Amino acid sequence: MQVSKLGIASLLCLAGAAMAQSDEPLQPIEPAKVTNQALVDLGAKLFFDPRLSRSGFISCNSCHNLSMGGSDNLKSSIGDRWQQGPINSPTVLNSSLNLAQFWDGRAADLRAQAGGPIANPMEMAFSHELAVDMLQSIPGYVNEFKAVFGDDKLSIDEVTTAIAAFEETLVTPNSRFDKWLKGDKKAITEDELKGYQLFKESGCIACHNGPNVGGNSFQRMGLIEPYQTDNPAEGRFAVTGDDADRFNFKVPTLRNVELTYPYFHDGAADTLSQAVDTMGRLQLGKKFTEEENGLIVGFLKTLTGDQPSFVLPQLPPSSDKTVRPNPFN
Amino acid sequence: MQVSKLGIASLLCLAGAAMAQSDEPLQPIEPAKVTNQALVDLGAKLFFDPRLSRSGFISCNSCHNLSMGGSDNLKSSIGDRWQQGPINSPTVLNSSLNLAQFWDGRAADLRAQAGGPIANPMEMAFSHELAVDMLQSIPGYVNEFKAVFGDDKLSIDEVTTAIAAFEETLVTPNSRFDKWLKGDKKAITEDELKGYQLFKESGCIACHNGPNVGGNSFQRMGLIEPYQTDNPAEGRFAVTGDDADRFNFKVPTLRNVELTYPYFHDGAADTLSQAVDTMGRLQLGKKFTEEENGLIVGFLKTLTGDQPSFVLPQLPPSSDKTVRPNPFN
Repeated sequence: MQVSKLGIASLLCLAGAAMAQSDEPLQPIEPAKVTNQALVDLGAKLFFDPRLSRSGFISCNSCHNLSMGGSDNLKSSIGDRWQQGPINSPTVLNSSLNLAQFWDGRAADLRAQAGGPIANPMEMAFSHELAVDMLQSIPGYVNEFKAVFGDDKLSIDEVTTAIAAFEETLVTPNSRFDKWLKGDKKAITEDELKGYQLFKESGCIACHNGPNVGGNSFQRMGLIEPYQTDNPAEGRFAVTGDDADRFNFKVPTLRNVELTYPYFHDGAADTLSQAVDTMGRLQLGKKFTEEENGLIVGFLKTLTGDQPSFVLPQLPPSSDKTVRPNPFN
Repeated sequence: MQVSKLGIASLLCLAGAAMAQSDEPLQPIEPAKVTNQALVDLGAKLFFDPRLSRSGFISCNSCHNLSMGGSDNLKSSIGDRWQQGPINSPTVLNSSLNLAQFWDGRAADLRAQAGGPIANPMEMAFSHELAVDMLQSIPGYVNEFKAVFGDDKLSIDEVTTAIAAFEETLVTPNSRFDKWLKGDKKAITEDELKGYQLFKESGCIACHNGPNVGGNSFQRMGLIEPYQTDNPAEGRFAVTGDDADRFNFKVPTLRNVELTYPYFHDGAADTLSQAVDTMGRLQLGKKFTEEENGLIVGFLKTLTGDQPSFVLPQLPPSSDKTVRPNPFN
C-alpha cells in the first residue's frame, strides 16, 4: 500500500517535471551516454593528434580547443602554413545536437565533418590516404583500431567514426540555466530570469531554441537590415545553389557562448554585448537599451555548462616506418 | 623483540636498496612532491594558454606537447607566422632535473626558461608586458593569482613561477628500467639488460648518467668525428663567448627517448637507431653492429616512464576588456 502510494507520487512528480520542461522552448542538455569507451578513447587520441595534418602541428584540438569552449577564440582559424581560414571555427561542444555540421551545413553529421579539415588544403592540408598510412605505421594505433573495429587494416571511415564518437561525448550539461529548467528556481538570479524573458519576448528564441539553444535551423544573416561584412562566405547557398539560401547560415548554438567569442560566421563581434546588439537590430529590428542588452548577456552567461573533463590523451609514438612531417616544405 | 627484529631487517633492506641503486650510474626518478597544488594548477592553465602568444594560437604545449613526450616531434618548431625555429624543441619532461635549460643552457632554471619563448619573436612573439596585461584583464586569472600570490597585480615573475611549478610536476617515474633499478629484476628482458651493459661499456654512460640519463653536463657534439649539419647553432659558445664552448650542447635526457624523436639539436636523426649509430661513431669512435645497435635501442625504450596524467585544464574566458589577438596582422 505504502509502496503503491509512493509509486503514484513519483509518477506525478515525474509528469510535473516533464511538463515544467516542455513549457519552455529551451531544453536541458543530458550527459553523454558512452556505450563504447574504447572507441571514445581512440577518438580522443585522434582528436589531439597533430600527425593528422601535413605539418604534424595542427590537430582537431588546435581550432576546437577543449580548454577554450571547443573553439580557438580567433576571428578565423590558422591553417597549414599560417593560412587564414575563411570562417570562424564553430565550437565542437554539443555539436552532436546540431542538424548538420559547418556554418553552411555541408556535412550531414560529425563523421562527415571530421574528414573535412584533415584533407582541406587551407586547414590540416593532409589527405585521407596519407592520414591512414600514417596511422597504419604506428603499432599503438593499429592495436587500438583492431581492438575497436576488429581488423588490421585501418580506414578513414574508422578514423572519422572514432573522432565523431569522442565528439558525441563533448556535451555540457548542468549549466545554471539547465538547473533552473529542471526546477531549481534559485539556480539563476532575478536579473538573469528577466534576461531570459526578454530573450523570449524579443524574438531571439525564434532561432535560438531547443536543447542546443540554436543549431537546429538555417537562417538568413541580416533579416531586417543587411549584414555588412568583408567575409565572402555565402552560407547555405554554397551547398544548395539555391538563391533563396544565399547568406543563410546554421544558427549557432548559444550554449557556452561566454566561452566561444568572437561571434558570427566572420567572427566580427568581439563581445556578447556587441553580438546581442547586432542581432537585435539586424534580425529583429530592435535596438536594445543598455539595460536590456545587459540583461540578455547576463542570461546568456547562465548557459555555460560543465566542460568536458578527461585526462589529456597520450598518443602512441611513431615507428621508424612513420613518414616524418616537414612543415616547412 | 619482534618489532625490533623487523626494524633491523627493514634498515638492512633499505641500505641494500640504496646500495643497489648507488652501484649504478643511473638513478630512478621519484614522483613529484606537490606542496602547492593551487600554484601547480595555475601553471597548468598558463602552460596550455595560447593567449600568451601574439597570435592567440601558440601555447607552451604547442612545442612541448604533453600528449607526445613533452615535445613536438618536429625537426625544429613552428613559431609565430609559421616561422621555422632554429633548433629542436627539447622535451619538457623531467626538465627540472637538468643543470640548466635550453640546448645552450642560457636559462639557469625553469622560471628563467618560461619567459623566453613568450617574448621570442620567432616563437610566441608576445612581450612580457602584453602577456601580463592580457592575464590582468581576465577576472578568472586575477582571482587565481590573488589566491596563490596574495596580490591583485600580476607580474611576469608570478607567471613564470607558476609555469615552472607545473613543469616541476612533469616527471616520469616507474619506467621499466627504474623498476629494475629498484630491484625488480624481471622488469626488463635479458636483451634489454644486455643493451644497458653495452650502453655502459661503450661509454654512452659517460655523458648520459644520473637520474635524467643526461641533462647534467655540456658536451661537444662531434668529439671524435665532426658533426655535419646545416644548423648554425653554436651551442654553449653563444652563452659564454668562450671558444672552448663552441659546439658544446647540453646533453639531452634519454628519459622517454622513444617518444621524443627526432633527435639531436638539429633534429637530424629520425630514429633511435640512427641516433645511436651517429653517437657511437662521432662521440665514441665506435661503429655499433646492427645487433649492438638493436640492443642499445631496446634498452633505451625501457626508459619510458609514466607520462604526466592530469585533466585537461579549462582556461578562464577573456573579458570584454581583453585585447583580441590578430594572428594575421
